[in-house]
Amino acid sequence: MAMKSLTVNLGTRSYPIHIGSRLLDQRDLFEPYCRTGAVCIVTDDKVAPLYLERLQRTIAAFKPHSVILPNGEQNKHWQTLDRIFTFLLKNELGRDSTLIALGGGVIGDLTGFAAACYQRGIHYLQIPTTLLAQVDSSVGGKTAINHRYGKNMIGAFHQPQAVIADTDTLASLDTRDFSAGLAESIKYGIMADADFFLWLETNIQALLARDSELLNYAIYRSCEIKAEVVAADERETGQRELLNLGHTFGHAIEIGLGYGEWLHGEAVAAGMMLAAALSTRMGWLTSAEYRRISRLLERAGLPIKAPDSLTHEDFMQHMQRDKKVREGRLRLVLPRGIGKAVMSAEFDPAALADTLAGKPL
Amino acid sequence: MAMKSLTVNLGTRSYPIHIGSRLLDQRDLFEPYCRTGAVCIVTDDKVAPLYLERLQRTIAAFKPHSVILPNGEQNKHWQTLDRIFTFLLKNELGRDSTLIALGGGVIGDLTGFAAACYQRGIHYLQIPTTLLAQVDSSVGGKTAINHRYGKNMIGAFHQPQAVIADTDTLASLDTRDFSAGLAESIKYGIMADADFFLWLETNIQALLARDSELLNYAIYRSCEIKAEVVAADERETGQRELLNLGHTFGHAIEIGLGYGEWLHGEAVAAGMMLAAALSTRMGWLTSAEYRRISRLLERAGLPIKAPDSLTHEDFMQHMQRDKKVREGRLRLVLPRGIGKAVMSAEFDPAALADTLAGKPL
Repeated sequence: MAMKSLTVNLGTRSYPIHIGSRLLDQRDLFEPYCRTGAVCIVTDDKVAPLYLERLQRTIAAFKPHSVILPNGEQNKHWQTLDRIFTFLLKNELGRDSTLIALGGGVIGDLTGFAAACYQRGIHYLQIPTTLLAQVDSSVGGKTAINHRYGKNMIGAFHQPQAVIADTDTLASLDTRDFSAGLAESIKYGIMADADFFLWLETNIQALLARDSELLNYAIYRSCEIKAEVVAADERETGQRELLNLGHTFGHAIEIGLGYGEWLHGEAVAAGMMLAAALSTRMGWLTSAEYRRISRLLERAGLPIKAPDSLTHEDFMQHMQRDKKVREGRLRLVLPRGIGKAVMSAEFDPAALADTLAGKPL
Repeated sequence: MAMKSLTVNLGTRSYPIHIGSRLLDQRDLFEPYCRTGAVCIVTDDKVAPLYLERLQRTIAAFKPHSVILPNGEQNKHWQTLDRIFTFLLKNELGRDSTLIALGGGVIGDLTGFAAACYQRGIHYLQIPTTLLAQVDSSVGGKTAINHRYGKNMIGAFHQPQAVIADTDTLASLDTRDFSAGLAESIKYGIMADADFFLWLETNIQALLARDSELLNYAIYRSCEIKAEVVAADERETGQRELLNLGHTFGHAIEIGLGYGEWLHGEAVAAGMMLAAALSTRMGWLTSAEYRRISRLLERAGLPIKAPDSLTHEDFMQHMQRDKKVREGRLRLVLPRGIGKAVMSAEFDPAALADTLAGKPL
């Protein structure tokens, strides 16, 4: 299958996204970014046994270093980040070094933030190996670690030099991780592209069977939508905020249950259902549209309601620290029909309370 | 005494530097950057008893929060930084908040880096209260924390919204801190401005007596030189590196002795003497120029030789992790006469060894 490429247009910070099969073996994709002795692969103990040796072989000429971190969202914090810094300093990697993030969203976020801060900024590549990272988190330069009081609260905007998505790596994903990635793809449909949403409805069975042709298209289209939004609003002062559909509710679920309990994509799915329910209560979404969203997420193997253990108060407490709060006011991304979302502080508080209490529509 | 102002020209990231007396009381200087309930003063336990209440009074209308950190270079690390993040999150300060760094270089570096990372970037003001911070560290947007393997190794370029230097605060500085600040002023003379060096030679006694007219000029001229260099090379890819004269040696002294043992300015003074000695050995500086530098630093109350406890090997080990190393090669900023410095990897290793061993010229 041919490789497909697109560009994130950000002036001097522009970079390519390559999507395709067997890309992990193509030395020429990596070569422009590597210098002998000044490359460090950052990965985790779940991904390393699967792909580390292969990538090391591909770029062996550059004598890459590698760091293996513990897998999982519960490790996306300072102590893990500091293991990267300590390794780089012990091995005397300079400001002209390049980090390679080999893994899912957590590895991409940690490695990108390490690259943003190490010696005040070095280069890095994103090599996403999960569906969630390939359709979403590896693109756009958002990097962060979690804080016990808030998800992704400490971070930086720091764009990679390139994103290289080898779609063969998706074969090794377990069902739960795979579904979590679909959540972000479905998000793009709801917030920006009704045709893509319909395409996902039509092809969800084949996607779950990991049909590679269809998967490649889903990844490409997701990256295309994201690249366009990021190019228009790199530092999230407007339009880019809409990419957070379901995320304010979702982050509250992740913090409330404890990082790593639900996968990020699972929390986002339940979060999108809460956003959809609130929109429906306010007449911004028809019941039929609400049911289409609910049905697609369910078919994708995703949770469509928040965990029972989280109360209205839990949600409100965690959401009040959301990065989109302005002048103390909560702002939410809410769908207006399928294919369009808006950022609003003008939601009905009673409708929000009913939604968080799980009252039927 | 009238307030003097200048601008750091960085396009959309341009900002003013205000220098003068009683500025801490002038609400109109702070007002444009403050929003009620969304301001947090960050200071330390040495500066807070002197100036915190005064600044709180000036901006009382905005109900500022405040965090008081432990004083000293030995506290410029992650654990202290995390106290800022935890405070901001507990108090639900949003992405539209502003931090105010009230203190010396350590507080400026910590607060600036916290502002760079909190919710991926918020605004901050620099209110430097030491001479070192007023002439150097508060200007230019370099922020960082230390790592046990290297000074300022984890950080960001993040420009403040304004620098407000109240020169009255210098009255409370002890002699050692005051001299440490002079080191950076003398640095500007050596690296960029022979006339300013001569002016410092002429006026060093009056400066040590803290003549306010002369002090204001020394601060203004230092900021002017720095602002020009930063405007030309914000992210230190060329000319800005020259501002690190004495710093590669100086950082090695700070790490080698343990952070906080020598003040940063003291280490930079001894570091500039090592750089001057190496230049002299290579014929880039005359003996007379070397003696002028040595004499001025000595009159300013600064150390002019490295601590005996540091060996040649100690220096080489710490310097090999310097941020200016490229392709594994050490690069040093070295004076070529007074008023000019160059970045060079072409120094004579034997001359460097003799210099680090403290051999007489």
